[in-house]
Amino acid sequence: MENLSTLTGKYGEEGDQLLFKILNSGDFLKDVDQSALETRNSKSITSNVSEKGLRYDLTVPFARYVVMNRGEISFPFKRYQIQPVWRADRPQRGRYREFYQCDADVVGTDSLLCETEIVLMIKEVFKALGIEEYTIKINHRAILSGLAELSCSKENESSLFIGIDKLDKIGEEKVREELKSRGFEENSLNIVFDILNFKGTTQQKIDFLTSKFSSSEKGKKGVADFKEVLSLLKSYGVEEDHVEFDIALARGLSYYTGCIFEVKINNVSIGSVGGGGRYDNLTGNFGLPGISGVGFSFGVDRLYDALEELQLFPKEAQISSTVMIAHLDEETFRYGLKVTQEVRQHGIATEIYPDQTKLKKQLDYANKKMIPFVIVIGSDEMKDGLLTIKNMETGEQEKLSLNEILVKKLAVGSKQ
Amino acid sequence: MENLSTLTGKYGEEGDQLLFKILNSGDFLKDVDQSALETRNSKSITSNVSEKGLRYDLTVPFARYVVMNRGEISFPFKRYQIQPVWRADRPQRGRYREFYQCDADVVGTDSLLCETEIVLMIKEVFKALGIEEYTIKINHRAILSGLAELSCSKENESSLFIGIDKLDKIGEEKVREELKSRGFEENSLNIVFDILNFKGTTQQKIDFLTSKFSSSEKGKKGVADFKEVLSLLKSYGVEEDHVEFDIALARGLSYYTGCIFEVKINNVSIGSVGGGGRYDNLTGNFGLPGISGVGFSFGVDRLYDALEELQLFPKEAQISSTVMIAHLDEETFRYGLKVTQEVRQHGIATEIYPDQTKLKKQLDYANKKMIPFVIVIGSDEMKDGLLTIKNMETGEQEKLSLNEILVKKLAVGSKQ
Repeated sequence: MENLSTLTGKYGEEGDQLLFKILNSGDFLKDVDQSALETRNSKSITSNVSEKGLRYDLTVPFARYVVMNRGEISFPFKRYQIQPVWRADRPQRGRYREFYQCDADVVGTDSLLCETEIVLMIKEVFKALGIEEYTIKINHRAILSGLAELSCSKENESSLFIGIDKLDKIGEEKVREELKSRGFEENSLNIVFDILNFKGTTQQKIDFLTSKFSSSEKGKKGVADFKEVLSLLKSYGVEEDHVEFDIALARGLSYYTGCIFEVKINNVSIGSVGGGGRYDNLTGNFGLPGISGVGFSFGVDRLYDALEELQLFPKEAQISSTVMIAHLDEETFRYGLKVTQEVRQHGIATEIYPDQTKLKKQLDYANKKMIPFVIVIGSDEMKDGLLTIKNMETGEQEKLSLNEILVKKLAVGSKQ
Repeated sequence: MENLSTLTGKYGEEGDQLLFKILNSGDFLKDVDQSALETRNSKSITSNVSEKGLRYDLTVPFARYVVMNRGEISFPFKRYQIQPVWRADRPQRGRYREFYQCDADVVGTDSLLCETEIVLMIKEVFKALGIEEYTIKINHRAILSGLAELSCSKENESSLFIGIDKLDKIGEEKVREELKSRGFEENSLNIVFDILNFKGTTQQKIDFLTSKFSSSEKGKKGVADFKEVLSLLKSYGVEEDHVEFDIALARGLSYYTGCIFEVKINNVSIGSVGGGGRYDNLTGNFGLPGISGVGFSFGVDRLYDALEELQLFPKEAQISSTVMIAHLDEETFRYGLKVTQEVRQHGIATEIYPDQTKLKKQLDYANKKMIPFVIVIGSDEMKDGLLTIKNMETGEQEKLSLNEILVKKLAVGSKQ
């Protein structure tokens, strides 16, 4: 949780409404204005009854942390963080009220190397997860500012960004309507959408924008930054594949000032699994201006959903124990405890069925839990020291000494 | 977060007061009773303005989860979970309003094997953390019930437990006072404290309680369970060391019914770093009676504090990168990107200083971040392919090919 004052005003108007607020402890009505109570004005008493809120993302609390610990931090400061965040939204597929984000940020440098490393990181993560079809969309807030300049809507820049952010959800027509209702001229909107609708290769987009932005310093800066990110990527020797220059990418959060990112997994129902960007002034909110940062946030639950949909979770990820010890009576149960402990000491995840019950029930449990091997201990086994090991997949079973089981069946190295 | 109805009434009266409640979204005053508002009765309107709360522990939400997913779960069901919990307490050293718990539970069996495995787990965890001086205190709620029976305070059992739980914080005298004010007779309290104050070895305590509980079925059951846990531990071939039979251990939470545990690290300021026990009726709260469970919860932040106090964090834990690439100008920076990528491809955590700046500043940063090796790239290096590698601890530096650096300095195996 955070102080509400840390959170409010950082995520735009809509974001503020989606903050979960924590009711003050104890007699929370004590200091509330009587007339506000009488008129049942929820909004005006909120700040009296709630001082703390739940994290909406990890970036703003991170900025707060950096400022509070500036004395002990060596800049440039990198960190990753995996924690839950909360949004008071209507829950639906891919949208949770409580979900995990995994963030990586660098603060204290404006080097575009950091943007490039975000691209590298995303590629590395997706490779590790086995996700092959995805798109890393990149744009730059300065390009959008250039657009606002060109269309004479500089003053309404943030309304323009919010409108553009909704493009892929509600389409051009509705965005035009909304922007018109916010005072945008038809003519301005035509200029904006002429540019947003430009199709072509990355190089064609760069050339197109370069010509459009001949008189816009901001626009030029945005294009130059994007070109530099690509150039650095090349210097690393890393392919430009998966990267898409998306002029119509806006991102909802109000704190971005430079490059912005969004990652989509192709061919899954909830494709967008992360986003990020550069923020030049975020720590300024907490009293430390001039510290630029850039970060990226994976939506962990959406990644999970996508991995399920693509059936990319390996079978092994569902196996918690490699071996289960089964037993037939009190005596073999006791003997089984020793065996359990011995197998565990070789680093093999082992469990013993905790209750004395029929063998069938024990094997059923092992099957349901997809435990690959069961060692059955009967009284013969205890006498001659040979244990029955059953391969639960093939059904095959053998009588072997514990040492043979460890080496031949469970691939324990000779180091034992 | 959870529905408040899931949380309230599970942690005792004090626990209920320490629940963080979330303010309903939107017009939260809408359905509040007018007269309650007028009289500013915070307590009576709480349930109108708040429907959700923050997890107080992981056990109750786990029980709720088990009941909701009973159809898909194979019992006995084991899980571990690491997540934040919240308590609206006055923060102080070792007591946080937001902290992490690491829980391990088994539900669906009343086998005392599970209690024994909790002891094994604690020993394993402490071994891995390098903590050698610690005590696993064990008691049994049935022993405390036996105590209540003996002292004719069966009806006030839970008050008695709450009192005993405070013993090590406020001492016998104050606990006696508190229990007297709750209606306990002097005579009853003498019986209780005679037993609680018994000192001796584990065997002496067992013998003492066995004689005391000759007519208490509950008391007998408690002692028998504890003996069985020790016996199972022996069957595993595991030493009884670190285990202490603490008759005066009560644990605050109201849902425990069987064995209870508490773990203290000796010689640190906040010693208690975890607790747990068996709960026979917890899932019954959510409509699934008859499922016994037992679990243990580590207080992760307290463990962290203790590890810091005992200086047990290894130096390596503070090192994030093994190698930093330093550079002198644009050209060497670009060359450095290729080197960075190559070193990374051997699985070595590598970073390149992101800004073009003085070498001294780059080396200072590497020093502060305790990066053990820096590869400095100058124009000579680019020409002859020999890179300067500096050992930041010894100051020693050498010119070597990248391959030599990988094999000789960074111990990359011949597999490359």
